[in-house]
Amino acid sequence: MTTTPKRLLVGRPLASDRLDETLLPKRIALAVFCSDPLSSVAYATQEILLVLAIGGTALLHLAWWAAGGVIALLVVVVASYRQTCYAYPNGGGAYAVSRENLGAGASLVAASALLVDYVLTVAVSVVAGMDNVVSAFPAFASHEVALSVAAVAALVAANLRGVKESGRAFAVPTYGFVASILLVIVVGAVRGLLGNPVVAASAGLPLHAQQNFTGVALLLLLLRAFSSGCTALTGVEAISNGVPSFRPPKPRNAARTLAAMGALAVTMFGGITALALTSGVHIAEDPTALGLPPDAPQQTVIAQLGAATFGGSSVMFYLTQAFTAAVLVLAANTAFSGFPVLASILSRDGYLPRQFTRRGDRLVFSNGIVVLGLLAIALVVAFDADTTRLIQLYIIGVFVSFTLSQLGMVRHWTRDLAGTSNRALRRRIVRSRAVNAIGAGSTALVLVVVLVTKFVHGAWIVIIAMPLLLWMMTAIRRHYRRVAQALRPAPGGFPLPARVHLVVPVARLHTAALRALAYARATRPTTLTAVTAEVDPAETAALIREWEERDLPVPLVVLEAPYRDITRALLAYVDQRRREAGPHDVIGVFVPEYIVAHWWEHLLHNQSALRLKTRLLFRPGVFVTSVPAHLRGDGLLDSTPSSHSTGAAAGAATGTAPGTAPGTAPGTPETPDERSLAQLTRG
Amino acid sequence: MTTTPKRLLVGRPLASDRLDETLLPKRIALAVFCSDPLSSVAYATQEILLVLAIGGTALLHLAWWAAGGVIALLVVVVASYRQTCYAYPNGGGAYAVSRENLGAGASLVAASALLVDYVLTVAVSVVAGMDNVVSAFPAFASHEVALSVAAVAALVAANLRGVKESGRAFAVPTYGFVASILLVIVVGAVRGLLGNPVVAASAGLPLHAQQNFTGVALLLLLLRAFSSGCTALTGVEAISNGVPSFRPPKPRNAARTLAAMGALAVTMFGGITALALTSGVHIAEDPTALGLPPDAPQQTVIAQLGAATFGGSSVMFYLTQAFTAAVLVLAANTAFSGFPVLASILSRDGYLPRQFTRRGDRLVFSNGIVVLGLLAIALVVAFDADTTRLIQLYIIGVFVSFTLSQLGMVRHWTRDLAGTSNRALRRRIVRSRAVNAIGAGSTALVLVVVLVTKFVHGAWIVIIAMPLLLWMMTAIRRHYRRVAQALRPAPGGFPLPARVHLVVPVARLHTAALRALAYARATRPTTLTAVTAEVDPAETAALIREWEERDLPVPLVVLEAPYRDITRALLAYVDQRRREAGPHDVIGVFVPEYIVAHWWEHLLHNQSALRLKTRLLFRPGVFVTSVPAHLRGDGLLDSTPSSHSTGAAAGAATGTAPGTAPGTAPGTPETPDERSLAQLTRG
Repeated sequence: MTTTPKRLLVGRPLASDRLDETLLPKRIALAVFCSDPLSSVAYATQEILLVLAIGGTALLHLAWWAAGGVIALLVVVVASYRQTCYAYPNGGGAYAVSRENLGAGASLVAASALLVDYVLTVAVSVVAGMDNVVSAFPAFASHEVALSVAAVAALVAANLRGVKESGRAFAVPTYGFVASILLVIVVGAVRGLLGNPVVAASAGLPLHAQQNFTGVALLLLLLRAFSSGCTALTGVEAISNGVPSFRPPKPRNAARTLAAMGALAVTMFGGITALALTSGVHIAEDPTALGLPPDAPQQTVIAQLGAATFGGSSVMFYLTQAFTAAVLVLAANTAFSGFPVLASILSRDGYLPRQFTRRGDRLVFSNGIVVLGLLAIALVVAFDADTTRLIQLYIIGVFVSFTLSQLGMVRHWTRDLAGTSNRALRRRIVRSRAVNAIGAGSTALVLVVVLVTKFVHGAWIVIIAMPLLLWMMTAIRRHYRRVAQALRPAPGGFPLPARVHLVVPVARLHTAALRALAYARATRPTTLTAVTAEVDPAETAALIREWEERDLPVPLVVLEAPYRDITRALLAYVDQRRREAGPHDVIGVFVPEYIVAHWWEHLLHNQSALRLKTRLLFRPGVFVTSVPAHLRGDGLLDSTPSSHSTGAAAGAATGTAPGTAPGTAPGTPETPDERSLAQLTRG
Repeated sequence: MTTTPKRLLVGRPLASDRLDETLLPKRIALAVFCSDPLSSVAYATQEILLVLAIGGTALLHLAWWAAGGVIALLVVVVASYRQTCYAYPNGGGAYAVSRENLGAGASLVAASALLVDYVLTVAVSVVAGMDNVVSAFPAFASHEVALSVAAVAALVAANLRGVKESGRAFAVPTYGFVASILLVIVVGAVRGLLGNPVVAASAGLPLHAQQNFTGVALLLLLLRAFSSGCTALTGVEAISNGVPSFRPPKPRNAARTLAAMGALAVTMFGGITALALTSGVHIAEDPTALGLPPDAPQQTVIAQLGAATFGGSSVMFYLTQAFTAAVLVLAANTAFSGFPVLASILSRDGYLPRQFTRRGDRLVFSNGIVVLGLLAIALVVAFDADTTRLIQLYIIGVFVSFTLSQLGMVRHWTRDLAGTSNRALRRRIVRSRAVNAIGAGSTALVLVVVLVTKFVHGAWIVIIAMPLLLWMMTAIRRHYRRVAQALRPAPGGFPLPARVHLVVPVARLHTAALRALAYARATRPTTLTAVTAEVDPAETAALIREWEERDLPVPLVVLEAPYRDITRALLAYVDQRRREAGPHDVIGVFVPEYIVAHWWEHLLHNQSALRLKTRLLFRPGVFVTSVPAHLRGDGLLDSTPSSHSTGAAAGAATGTAPGTAPGTAPGTPETPDERSLAQLTRG
């Protein structure tokens, strides 16, 4: 019924055995997993410049140092994660690695850091992408929030269709972006060598210092610029998480893709930063520092370089902006690969609700995808689609998981070493361990720098969010454990209820009520009672009259409803029956319901039935049965087995011995005495 | 569980027999039902002046004519509705009167007009009230929408508590408003007679004509001003609707209250208009016409007169504003008395969803109150809390229902006349009919005037909304009729299902599953089958092993779930069983569910059960049973009859003859053979 829109959006369902088909070749994997670290070139340089701009033109040259630090760190981290690809061919996410090597506590810290980061990856990338759209088309400047939300929604839809189709769609913009950025760098370098250097449009603007920095303050500003530049590292871990998605030999293909990504990232980030500095790009959070009005729009660094290199209305400028925006939106896709998988692993381990383990029709973890999308949209709206403010939250989590992951790898190699006597192998392991140790040391150091320099600028939000997430995950696990404990069956037998007392609430004597009575009677209960709550005495009198006319072989109990609350009266009656019943008896309530043809018709029916059913579920020793009467669009009842001719009463039940055949179980043979009662209406 | 917040908001539930206690004495009834027509004094004059202001200072004197017309009409309509009070002591709403005298079609037109008007009464009154708050405290000028929404929400809460408590709370502001307005008028008149007339603050402002009016245009402007002034009549019908809420003798008390209200309204409206004109109040929709900046705030007419009479920072000025704001908010309460009652009548007649007939815990029609509040909030937000724009929608519906109601009364008297021979009585009836005929004629004429002069200014929205409502109501009635037709039971007997096949979906072998199996088995089905869907082969193997170890006397069927969609696999199985079963058989599905202690824990459970149950309800010939396992806060299972010692198995069922005693019905005596199966686990 309601599946058609879903099909259009998501595509046909895929069977489980097609899971292997979604494995990725290297060039597609690069597009899928590396759009995040590559695309961060589009904003990492800009974030460095925005921090240094506070100190005015005189301090912009410090960007060389900040960028140099970022590049060195990028090389170290890429080298470190290549080790992880080999050591964990089934996916070396920070959670798995730290769980195996550092224990459950550390792994949960890593997991909460990763979950936060996935959400921020989506928010930051999409918003930065829209910044570049607005740089090309300033008319959209006031609609950035709406544009960003629409982009996230589109990503959710694409990912619900499955990763492979996404991969293909992502290759063009990723490689288009790489090509156009490299072209900007090459043209810039060539023109520089030819003595006709590229000059940014904003080079002519003044850049007033808003504050003076000397000594420690200057150092802190440089470190803060470096911290901001570290956004270039976000997403490097995606490949090591995604090793199982590669084609075999998975580890080698993953490690090679990682190396290629590192080389591209270093080239592009270094080139863009150098070009931005030599072409004199001036950009500031507060436009008045540039002598502009307070709400003047500023182009992104990429847009300024593209316009200066190709011309502000050239096809190549618009193409560069289009690729940049596209790759940034697609960078968010890294998170859509990672978040649902991590959520499903955490869910399998009992730390998140079980729904996250469920693969959807298209073999993806649909719930994780939807939740990630909603959280990212919430962040975009809350931070008013401001890249710089969002980036303050971003880097903490990345470096927490980097550090834990590398630390775990050091432990991993140490343990490997203990079990290895082969000298060549031992040498390789020692080298790997050294790489990971350097990685862990540097990322830990950067984490401290980030914490110190970013705390007041927004990182505190993450510092609060991560422990909350941690607490929630442990609470969920405690709950599931408690439930499993409570549900463990006793070793002895499980007793059958001694008697079954059935109750059928009846408002009017229509087919739905008769059907509920017939079904209830067919289950041969110990007692069967129809009950009605008196709201209007005239209606009740009419019901009793009709009941007697039909000579129904079921007693009808009339309840007072002093508060006109039918539900309450029925609940009180059920409670009374439970008190009167034996301790080993069970009460069942058969509720007549209408199933109507259109959703809006549901608003006109079943409200009392729904209320009653919900409240009854909270009574121990009571089971609740819905007996649906199906109304077709033309207003007629759908024909069902029991609405056939009265000949039905003659059908004899076949009793089979226990367990004789699958699909059948012991029944009670009908006695002749019973068969005479099989017709609900006497006569 | 969840009732505590509701109790705090709404109060303790009241029993039906306390319905009489909520009858109102005249002085309280005046406050409850007349706050609407009385409070409209606060904006009716202003709306006349705003229309005439378009023609500049020279045309303001036309306000005398417009106001005179309004007063004459008010007298006619009050006289006319007094007849209704006597003729319909059980409540002579436009719907009831036109239904009885003009037929179902006319009554539905009246009903849709009334429903629209009730919503607009709430929106207009609350927004006008907040206009007066802002006039006293200009700091709130930018929060009018939020203030209005909060006021509507407060009214909803007050009305959910019941009408009597509302009445008491409403007497003070209504009489306070009447007293302060009369004081303004008296002080103004005395000062005028003493040669020291009151002068409004805006009297010094110029009032530039924005357009020149001559001939027909001038007449149309006057008629438009008159139309706007007719807002003073809104709510006059409330008393005739509410006759049953009066203390006996209901008709006479209601008619007297109506007369008192009419006298007060004429005095206050006439006095305020006269004072506004003599004190030189200048007000315009466009502040530039007054030589002010485009977004300059203007005080309401009431605030200007209060400030001019008492001084702009005097206690009496603030008191007048407070009473005015309060009475306007309470005027909205007229609609909260009328809308839910009308909705319940329409619902009883099948034109609105049945939920509207349900009286809540506090003897009020809770659903009507909540729906009215939500619709009014939507209007306030959509029209940005602008009184003048909202008023354009307001008057059409009022005069449609006025006209239909008076026409109905004319027919009513004509019929009465036919059955009466007493001459004195006939004379009285003829006089009454004349009064109603004059009422009907004048309101019909005004309706035409309003239609012509207001159409382009917003009335078209109502012209569209009313037929839509009409269509919706007839569609709902058609639906209920069709359902009733379909559910009418066949005159012969109703057949019992021949066989009952029960299916129990099982994921793991825990207590909840065992309980569902035990309950299902206790209903002695023809066949009983446990089914599980294989998602993880290892888990399934473990389940089968445990099943065999426990030697459960129920066959377990393992289903393939190629799409990992457990629900789909189970549905396919149920469909297959239905095809295999006889035409007169029925399938029942017993679904194990967990009932957890906290609402948030629900998010962690039952998602698959809910999906399965919802989908199963759409299968004809299938009933669905929820078997709850209750988990307490400490994580233990709530003890229930069937979780007792295995001694339960020994309890013998007592079979009683059909219909021998209320509360019992025929059961199947247990045979010795059955009793040996009563233990679910063998051995």
